[in-house]
Amino acid sequence: MVMSEYDATDGVAQVGDFARLDLARLARTGMAETVYCAGKTPEQAVAIFAAFARAGQAALGTRCSAAVGAAVEAAVPGARYEAVGRTLQLPGAKRPVHGQVAVCTGGTADLPVAEEAAQTAAFFGAEVVRFYDVGVAGLQRLLGQLEAIRRADVVIAVAGMEGALATVLAGLVEVPVIAVPTSVGYGAAFGGLAPLLAMLNGCAEGVSVVNIDNGFGAAAQACRMLRLRNKE
Amino acid sequence: MVMSEYDATDGVAQVGDFARLDLARLARTGMAETVYCAGKTPEQAVAIFAAFARAGQAALGTRCSAAVGAAVEAAVPGARYEAVGRTLQLPGAKRPVHGQVAVCTGGTADLPVAEEAAQTAAFFGAEVVRFYDVGVAGLQRLLGQLEAIRRADVVIAVAGMEGALATVLAGLVEVPVIAVPTSVGYGAAFGGLAPLLAMLNGCAEGVSVVNIDNGFGAAAQACRMLRLRNKE
Amino acid sequence: MVMSEYDATDGVAQVGDFARLDLARLARTGMAETVYCAGKTPEQAVAIFAAFARAGQAALGTRCSAAVGAAVEAAVPGARYEAVGRTLQLPGAKRPVHGQVAVCTGGTADLPVAEEAAQTAAFFGAEVVRFYDVGVAGLQRLLGQLEAIRRADVVIAVAGMEGALATVLAGLVEVPVIAVPTSVGYGAAFGGLAPLLAMLNGCAEGVSVVNIDNGFGAAAQACRMLRLRNKE
Amino acid sequence: MVMSEYDATDGVAQVGDFARLDLARLARTGMAETVYCAGKTPEQAVAIFAAFARAGQAALGTRCSAAVGAAVEAAVPGARYEAVGRTLQLPGAKRPVHGQVAVCTGGTADLPVAEEAAQTAAFFGAEVVRFYDVGVAGLQRLLGQLEAIRRADVVIAVAGMEGALATVLAGLVEVPVIAVPTSVGYGAAFGGLAPLLAMLNGCAEGVSVVNIDNGFGAAAQACRMLRLRNKE
Amino acid sequence: MVMSEYDATDGVAQVGDFARLDLARLARTGMAETVYCAGKTPEQAVAIFAAFARAGQAALGTRCSAAVGAAVEAAVPGARYEAVGRTLQLPGAKRPVHGQVAVCTGGTADLPVAEEAAQTAAFFGAEVVRFYDVGVAGLQRLLGQLEAIRRADVVIAVAGMEGALATVLAGLVEVPVIAVPTSVGYGAAFGGLAPLLAMLNGCAEGVSVVNIDNGFGAAAQACRMLRLRNKE
Amino acid sequence: MVMSEYDATDGVAQVGDFARLDLARLARTGMAETVYCAGKTPEQAVAIFAAFARAGQAALGTRCSAAVGAAVEAAVPGARYEAVGRTLQLPGAKRPVHGQVAVCTGGTADLPVAEEAAQTAAFFGAEVVRFYDVGVAGLQRLLGQLEAIRRADVVIAVAGMEGALATVLAGLVEVPVIAVPTSVGYGAAFGGLAPLLAMLNGCAEGVSVVNIDNGFGAAAQACRMLRLRNKE
Amino acid sequence: MVMSEYDATDGVAQVGDFARLDLARLARTGMAETVYCAGKTPEQAVAIFAAFARAGQAALGTRCSAAVGAAVEAAVPGARYEAVGRTLQLPGAKRPVHGQVAVCTGGTADLPVAEEAAQTAAFFGAEVVRFYDVGVAGLQRLLGQLEAIRRADVVIAVAGMEGALATVLAGLVEVPVIAVPTSVGYGAAFGGLAPLLAMLNGCAEGVSVVNIDNGFGAAAQACRMLRLRNKE
Amino acid sequence: MVMSEYDATDGVAQVGDFARLDLARLARTGMAETVYCAGKTPEQAVAIFAAFARAGQAALGTRCSAAVGAAVEAAVPGARYEAVGRTLQLPGAKRPVHGQVAVCTGGTADLPVAEEAAQTAAFFGAEVVRFYDVGVAGLQRLLGQLEAIRRADVVIAVAGMEGALATVLAGLVEVPVIAVPTSVGYGAAFGGLAPLLAMLNGCAEGVSVVNIDNGFGAAAQACRMLRLRNKE
Repeated sequence: MVMSEYDATDGVAQVGDFARLDLARLARTGMAETVYCAGKTPEQAVAIFAAFARAGQAALGTRCSAAVGAAVEAAVPGARYEAVGRTLQLPGAKRPVHGQVAVCTGGTADLPVAEEAAQTAAFFGAEVVRFYDVGVAGLQRLLGQLEAIRRADVVIAVAGMEGALATVLAGLVEVPVIAVPTSVGYGAAFGGLAPLLAMLNGCAEGVSVVNIDNGFGAAAQACRMLRLRNKE
Repeated sequence: MVMSEYDATDGVAQVGDFARLDLARLARTGMAETVYCAGKTPEQAVAIFAAFARAGQAALGTRCSAAVGAAVEAAVPGARYEAVGRTLQLPGAKRPVHGQVAVCTGGTADLPVAEEAAQTAAFFGAEVVRFYDVGVAGLQRLLGQLEAIRRADVVIAVAGMEGALATVLAGLVEVPVIAVPTSVGYGAAFGGLAPLLAMLNGCAEGVSVVNIDNGFGAAAQACRMLRLRNKE
Repeated sequence: MVMSEYDATDGVAQVGDFARLDLARLARTGMAETVYCAGKTPEQAVAIFAAFARAGQAALGTRCSAAVGAAVEAAVPGARYEAVGRTLQLPGAKRPVHGQVAVCTGGTADLPVAEEAAQTAAFFGAEVVRFYDVGVAGLQRLLGQLEAIRRADVVIAVAGMEGALATVLAGLVEVPVIAVPTSVGYGAAFGGLAPLLAMLNGCAEGVSVVNIDNGFGAAAQACRMLRLRNKE
Repeated sequence: MVMSEYDATDGVAQVGDFARLDLARLARTGMAETVYCAGKTPEQAVAIFAAFARAGQAALGTRCSAAVGAAVEAAVPGARYEAVGRTLQLPGAKRPVHGQVAVCTGGTADLPVAEEAAQTAAFFGAEVVRFYDVGVAGLQRLLGQLEAIRRADVVIAVAGMEGALATVLAGLVEVPVIAVPTSVGYGAAFGGLAPLLAMLNGCAEGVSVVNIDNGFGAAAQACRMLRLRNKE
Repeated sequence: MVMSEYDATDGVAQVGDFARLDLARLARTGMAETVYCAGKTPEQAVAIFAAFARAGQAALGTRCSAAVGAAVEAAVPGARYEAVGRTLQLPGAKRPVHGQVAVCTGGTADLPVAEEAAQTAAFFGAEVVRFYDVGVAGLQRLLGQLEAIRRADVVIAVAGMEGALATVLAGLVEVPVIAVPTSVGYGAAFGGLAPLLAMLNGCAEGVSVVNIDNGFGAAAQACRMLRLRNKE
Repeated sequence: MVMSEYDATDGVAQVGDFARLDLARLARTGMAETVYCAGKTPEQAVAIFAAFARAGQAALGTRCSAAVGAAVEAAVPGARYEAVGRTLQLPGAKRPVHGQVAVCTGGTADLPVAEEAAQTAAFFGAEVVRFYDVGVAGLQRLLGQLEAIRRADVVIAVAGMEGALATVLAGLVEVPVIAVPTSVGYGAAFGGLAPLLAMLNGCAEGVSVVNIDNGFGAAAQACRMLRLRNKE
Repeated sequence: MVMSEYDATDGVAQVGDFARLDLARLARTGMAETVYCAGKTPEQAVAIFAAFARAGQAALGTRCSAAVGAAVEAAVPGARYEAVGRTLQLPGAKRPVHGQVAVCTGGTADLPVAEEAAQTAAFFGAEVVRFYDVGVAGLQRLLGQLEAIRRADVVIAVAGMEGALATVLAGLVEVPVIAVPTSVGYGAAFGGLAPLLAMLNGCAEGVSVVNIDNGFGAAAQACRMLRLRNKE
Repeated sequence: MVMSEYDATDGVAQVGDFARLDLARLARTGMAETVYCAGKTPEQAVAIFAAFARAGQAALGTRCSAAVGAAVEAAVPGARYEAVGRTLQLPGAKRPVHGQVAVCTGGTADLPVAEEAAQTAAFFGAEVVRFYDVGVAGLQRLLGQLEAIRRADVVIAVAGMEGALATVLAGLVEVPVIAVPTSVGYGAAFGGLAPLLAMLNGCAEGVSVVNIDNGFGAAAQACRMLRLRNKE
């Protein structure tokens, strides 16, 4: 395979012939490039995490299979795999955030997505409090937790099926709500389309939405918000 | 236009060359055939309602324009047009129902659909109580009305946008909830698709759904339910 | 995993760190919380059913795999698994319903969904009569059963493909028809979209619809209707 | 506008700079080219029908507005416009068909599409019998006409909403059923998508489908079938 | 499982507790009920075919797996399984058709669907001629076969991807063309949606369409057409 | 019209029989209830804004037609209508925010949506800087403005068509990006579906999305973020 | 309206407060920025074209209404409006292309889109030859023109409905085919979705596709191809 | 299986009873027929490649599984399989192209599609340069390569998710850009629909699009463009 010649100024590191790591991203956006592990072989993942380790940067992998997780844990000292949220975490240089993120879910089945969000936010330094299985079909479960939820600086609402949790929460708290539709459900849920549309349509005043099952994206956006508190 | 020859036994009345009224429906299903007025000319509507009047049967028209309403009011004694819900009502023989129907809406813009439901249910004899603008974005509006809503025998939940009202209500009352998605909204509401999918996915335990904007269908189903109370 | 602190008043029982059982639901809505077993591990399911057993409440699991069913049968005395409808049934306190539910299907392939509906309705105390393989492509099969179907208080119409069974039935009986589209079919059935749309569009006068393959939801709604007969 | 040079052998006639009439189609396929009038100016339509008149060929226009119809009637002797089915008919040479076509509709609102089919079939020589407003929500209307419908050689089933008419008819007659979904309906009818999907999914044994609102296409296909009776 | 009591007049035979065979269909529509084998267990299939054998009726199974095919061949004398088209054929009483059916495909991958059509048509007595891999991307392959295709009484056009074969054929022959979209393709083919829409939109004059991959449906419709030649 | 009896505690004000204002929302969520004016009559809008004026609360109307705007300006002292962004602004008590919001658009046609966002943010006290027509088809337009954009605390990216602006911006700034897809475009833009999907899929690290054309929603979310800077 | 301060280096010209013209595009990509006129007021269009005139650059407007066209013709000397293709042409500096473009259409109704393509290509200097109404339903119309079409360097295939023209052409010529689906059609054409999908699926070997009705885009791409002939 | 009789003039070779090779395609369109290997058995693939080998023509297989690849390599001398791009290459007579093709990808996961494109272009004689992982989320990766990319005669942009790479590239280079959406992504990517729509909508001036994951189609179109340089 012939790759064009170029020099790696501007913080871009070439890994094998398949990836170009944006090592300057940390300085530029406040957050290191995250590694989307789905579809990568264990060898590719090891090479990428090893490059981050060499650069002394913290790195986070998402959608990581157990096999890839084990390979990187074995090859890259310090790397740690979390099975439920499927994240792979490498400690190192990062610009930490401060503040509390509440991660709420409609049901038990939303847990993997919620854990991806929670582990991501914690990795970047946020304090994370979990409120799981507080869906709107049984409102008192939610209302009973409300006081605690209101303490958070950002709320992440993870829900499949009808996805109403985000709207209801946004009407009850003052802080930004980030909605994560999940592919939990069947039939007319159409792989997460139903809660996605519901969340987009109920999003007046205080809700914005990320992709279906994108717990990482919600946490990353939450961290950008938390950083505002320190911005001059 | 050549129509095939046939005799009108079995309770079917031929009206002009364009409609065949199922006059036996009242006896068979407990409810006269309803007239879907959209796309009918004033002349066609007058002919149909006159036929019901001749048969002494009550008749209900839905999706009725002001022009068609005025024409029938002028030509058929007793017929009455209601503008907001766009119904046309002809008193006469019907099998009345007994019980209370609560019609709830998420917002003000859902009113035409809600009124179609309310007027239909009232036409067939139900006691109707309206709870409008009690959407879940401001939960206390809904919770403040809850005691009154719980008195109803059937709840009709009319909502556009994210359509969460039906699920939340079903978790708070014991009686059947009939969900009516509306085409209120814009963008990713896709003409009512968003609340339709939301209502179908949140419908475990006590919610069933009718077509987008189909206030009539919800009320007709509510009346069938009320009739169960008298069934032996 | 850090969960926020709270006390379990209001009838909510925390199970492990993954679920919050709404034990007050029985008193509030007349029906215990149902356990959606898809995506739950055998360990999670056992913990949840054991909690219901400790509370002395009846519990129903749906979408239950054989493995989960066997685990719960082994661990929780009294629990019973039904393979075709994939339900898991735990006897105990419940508020029973009275009346007859007719479960009709268009074809043989709709059987799992129909059995989910039938087993659910029977679990809550309804008398269930099955009319399977009476689709409209051979009308005389349906018409031959009509007298028996008319005896029911509620009719559940389960059909895939063109989904016409619900509309035809609603024109022939007086009681409410609950339509369940199924994902049976291929090509332009699009996983149940075709019968779902057909049932929503044919639903004037006496049909309301639940999610694709949601036999449980149809039965739960039927039970709410049957309870109307005892409501004051 | 520069058009490439070519000679008009092979039966193609150039009309102005916007159309190329396939005058050999009559000999090749048994049916003259039909003129789809939507989007054509009156001047373009007049030029096209005049060209057919000069060639002595019969011609049929569909989707013809009243304005275009009047213009052609005024300019081309013998041309006749039918308002309900929006067809424009020019007598002349054609290869006639023999046999009877039954045109059935689910409701009154399907009439324009049904008339397009009926006028097209009659134009080409078929005997047409109309069975309008025989939808499956009131089965006895259909069953009362069944004996007459069975006399036809081909059945065209025109229906919107749930579109079940085609499947039910195909189970009751021996001859081919051509299904025409219509855009009649609202909400989840999605402009005819619902009956289209329903008809495609119920089409085992004896149903094939044409485009939404395509009454012409159904009649043209019916005529091809009738011609089989004379084929050697 | 409790089934309602009924007697099997009207030609309906109960098989086990899962199917009701419409044995009168042969007399009523000219074609025995076909058995859709997908989703049926070998035991169910054997029971059904044995019932047809007892009644002396020919029977055709479609979408039949190799396992089901082997089971029926072993248990029901005379039954024969065809692997490519996945049909299961039981000789016996049937009303044969006369005439020739041309089965054309756009590509090699459409073969299973085409064979389902060809085997079905042959089973009911039609003479079948195959024209495979004559797609429009290489027109001369099609034009070279045109004379032979024109001899057929009905043309079945089987194609995936862009599905243009049906329109092109309909412009070249006089007889009815039945279009079968296939799920062959990838990406924006969306499981056969692309050729389905293409065939519906190109279907003026002589094309009607069946469901995606429904070779059986096309052949059954072709047989109804062939029967017209004998109709009085 | 019969409305159920209730007292207006909890900050809910009944307006006529069509709306229930949530006057306690300001205290609860930091932002007064916004009035969605589409579908409201001038009389309804006047009544609602007059109620806010009586309560001394600031109020913001969106999707306001010129006619409704003029009626409210005439009837409610202090109300002001902005035509491009279609907002209606009533000064009064509100909890102001502090910080800078950058509103960027891909093209000129996105202006009405962008102005809705800009006017909303300004109404609640944010400093707003506009960067219009900086779409990615001409990158240097965007790069030339980058330094200025980076000064903002929140970036709102408004774009139709391919919607790439949000992703590109998020890679260049540190602060949260809120993406607003617009219905600008034609053909395969499908009313804003294309940029909506693009923005959801490119939303890793720092992008969250609101409904199509929902400039208001983006600004409201931006204000919640700005408020985080003062949160303890 | 406050716009951020910036200086217009890099060839960007600010027009009013609504547009930023990329005057350096001509040098950078070989083609001046085109003006998408839909949604622009006459005043905005006049200002933009006047700016191009001042810069001495040629400019092309597309999707231009008659009103906007007249306003610009009146205000900007040399500007010329073409009604059918809705283009607005301003002569001036441009980098001309050399070679022949064949613009083919399936039917007469595709003419506005085809003319947009033809006028665009001619504006940039290509020789354009039109082959209109050569759709595949009458193959001999196309085959009769084939020799002339083969002389072109690039073929643009404009077609609605089933969109097969592009695939058929690509199998008959050696040069690149650019496919333009049009929104011509009805029913299951779904606004151009059907031909779009068809063209994407038939695009192996020599077809690439632009947006629905995007005649301009096809011609612009054709011009880039023609420029390859002069590239070193 | 009965195939119709015909003689193989016109360059069509019959292979077994399942394929008809268009050996005249090379002379007619400049490129041999490509073999779409998905769904073909090893035996069928061997037979087809052996036929090309006998004819002395070069042949290219795409979407080829490892098993099919190994079978053909073993049976047909000279055939070579490339695993990443899943191509199967048989040297032989072909009409080579001249020029350089740049293959760019948004991310690492797009590699299989990109390699299909690169291997195809190289097979037909183009010089191929790869620019992988240069997505727009980190613009400097792309800008750092821009000078090299600009040397190419044609650019192929392969991207999933938001698909913005094509638009951004087209604004930076002068040559044609061919966009290949990929099915990389999840959730609202809907199998490649999101980048497909984005690429179609951003395609003004210099972008045309092929099917999702169709690397081959992009390269084939690129080769047609390169051939223009030699056309007279």
